[in-house]
Amino acid sequence: MTEFELIAHLVRSLPTNQSVRIGAGDDCAALDMGFTDTLLLFKTDAMVEGVHFLHDTTPEKIGHKALGRCLSDIAAMGGRPSHALITIGLPAEFSVNFVEGVYRGINELASRYSMAIVGGETTSSPDRLFFSISVLGTVKKDRCIPRSGARSGDALFVTGTLGGSLAGKHLDFEPRLEEAEWLTSHFEIHAMIDVSDGLAGDLRHLVTSSRVGAEILVSAIPISRAAREAAKANTNGEPIGDNRRRRPKPPLAAALTDGEDFELVFALASRDAVPLLDAWKARFPMIPLSCIGKITDDPGIRLRDKAGVRPLTEHGYVHFA
Amino acid sequence: MTEFELIAHLVRSLPTNQSVRIGAGDDCAALDMGFTDTLLLFKTDAMVEGVHFLHDTTPEKIGHKALGRCLSDIAAMGGRPSHALITIGLPAEFSVNFVEGVYRGINELASRYSMAIVGGETTSSPDRLFFSISVLGTVKKDRCIPRSGARSGDALFVTGTLGGSLAGKHLDFEPRLEEAEWLTSHFEIHAMIDVSDGLAGDLRHLVTSSRVGAEILVSAIPISRAAREAAKANTNGEPIGDNRRRRPKPPLAAALTDGEDFELVFALASRDAVPLLDAWKARFPMIPLSCIGKITDDPGIRLRDKAGVRPLTEHGYVHFA
Repeated sequence: MTEFELIAHLVRSLPTNQSVRIGAGDDCAALDMGFTDTLLLFKTDAMVEGVHFLHDTTPEKIGHKALGRCLSDIAAMGGRPSHALITIGLPAEFSVNFVEGVYRGINELASRYSMAIVGGETTSSPDRLFFSISVLGTVKKDRCIPRSGARSGDALFVTGTLGGSLAGKHLDFEPRLEEAEWLTSHFEIHAMIDVSDGLAGDLRHLVTSSRVGAEILVSAIPISRAAREAAKANTNGEPIGDNRRRRPKPPLAAALTDGEDFELVFALASRDAVPLLDAWKARFPMIPLSCIGKITDDPGIRLRDKAGVRPLTEHGYVHFA
Repeated sequence: MTEFELIAHLVRSLPTNQSVRIGAGDDCAALDMGFTDTLLLFKTDAMVEGVHFLHDTTPEKIGHKALGRCLSDIAAMGGRPSHALITIGLPAEFSVNFVEGVYRGINELASRYSMAIVGGETTSSPDRLFFSISVLGTVKKDRCIPRSGARSGDALFVTGTLGGSLAGKHLDFEPRLEEAEWLTSHFEIHAMIDVSDGLAGDLRHLVTSSRVGAEILVSAIPISRAAREAAKANTNGEPIGDNRRRRPKPPLAAALTDGEDFELVFALASRDAVPLLDAWKARFPMIPLSCIGKITDDPGIRLRDKAGVRPLTEHGYVHFA
């Protein structure tokens, strides 16, 4: 049984109650705690040394990434983060400077969004460091965007550029909180998810939850400079843990599967596509926004290019001729 | 620098915001999210294999303990738990049966309190299992009990019995949620904390936060049968991780320092002491409630017995003649 199969299995028998608007299986849980017009967002994320970061990674960047990953999930719901708890598992021999550096990274990012760090825990972890961060946020009930609302015919968008994140972006990305709040307050977004596992994997979560499919125009995918340079240099940056790989990826494959881009993928009615692109350009002139395709009735994801239409295979990997 | 010193150091520079009623340093954070009369409680707790449980511990009990530890903290604020997120760090070779067992333990306890498990994460942890659980709860604003409200002259109470938890109670205790809710709705509790590190250590947190001291009557400390039996048998139960010890403890030392009792220690006005004992006996006839001493102006904790008054030393350990 893989990790994904195990989760799917476990999720089926979780206890629930009447306050749960969105439970396990979205970017955050969304809870109706009795506010008039606001839902509470609740999310947790863990990072393990050697899997998500290396021992010699700058501690400030580790802290930034640890909190940033959670904030990217809050953004994907259209929400605003408010509070966090920080758990650190520390080996017996730890460097105080290192832990302080991690906290500097966390605190700096939290302060930027007026978040409070309200506690947490330091526990013993004999072999390697780990971090687990829990975040609370809020979102207006009518602006909470699930993964599951995409409709056939919707236009599909992605912010920023994709691929090659290991060259640096995975440690210093800015979560798309401001962009998401602007999007949800100006347009009717049907479904949204953040790109943490790669466009191929995360778009699959979105279309599966929405019981639809997608067709992507290959030439419209915004491939990052880092992904192109990595392909040229025969390296995709610092290899770590699960992301370790032996052969260089073509730039398109990197954009589809590298992961840790922390961009937003979302669907909205196709009639809103041009007004959105115009308004976005005026509001965020420095941040690319790309219409990469459309939502379809047919399940699964297909890639369209000059040669025709091909299915995007499972697990985010695509086989090229 | 010890773990405690590090935490104290880090806590001083955490970012905060206007919604924080109680931040780092109490059993839970208490947040004013804009409800009329309710605060949100937010808590996280981690358990690491070999530190908090052994590889051969029954998985259901591991799950029960992992969630129960958080619920004990919710109880210590006078609150009611509502939602949890579960993070599991899994080695590459994991047993599906084991993980399912852990979830059975978690789900069973959560269901008993009408809690929803609303997601979490499974991540790779190469060397050993870990769990990190985040819990939300609610408490009426006027019934939220901090550690910091004890006043000189208050009577000091403890629920249940103390010591010898490693013989079994640390894995199957019932968090004192019902008792805490009853206490806070019938009496004006000034300060409360749960006993996770041992009475000596946790009472010290309470008196330090409250800027007071305490005098404990040795003969009034409710020593558990497990602590007495462990002293006789020259063992204190299954030795694990940080709790490993080489020599048997006298029962009183066990009651003061063993930890993981998950009982409640609280202070209230001395005039309420007798009415409380009477009402408790009627409501919870099977659960001991002991008045173990009083809050004093003098800082620190002192033990009183036939031989006189002695200070209880730092770190929860007491030296006997």
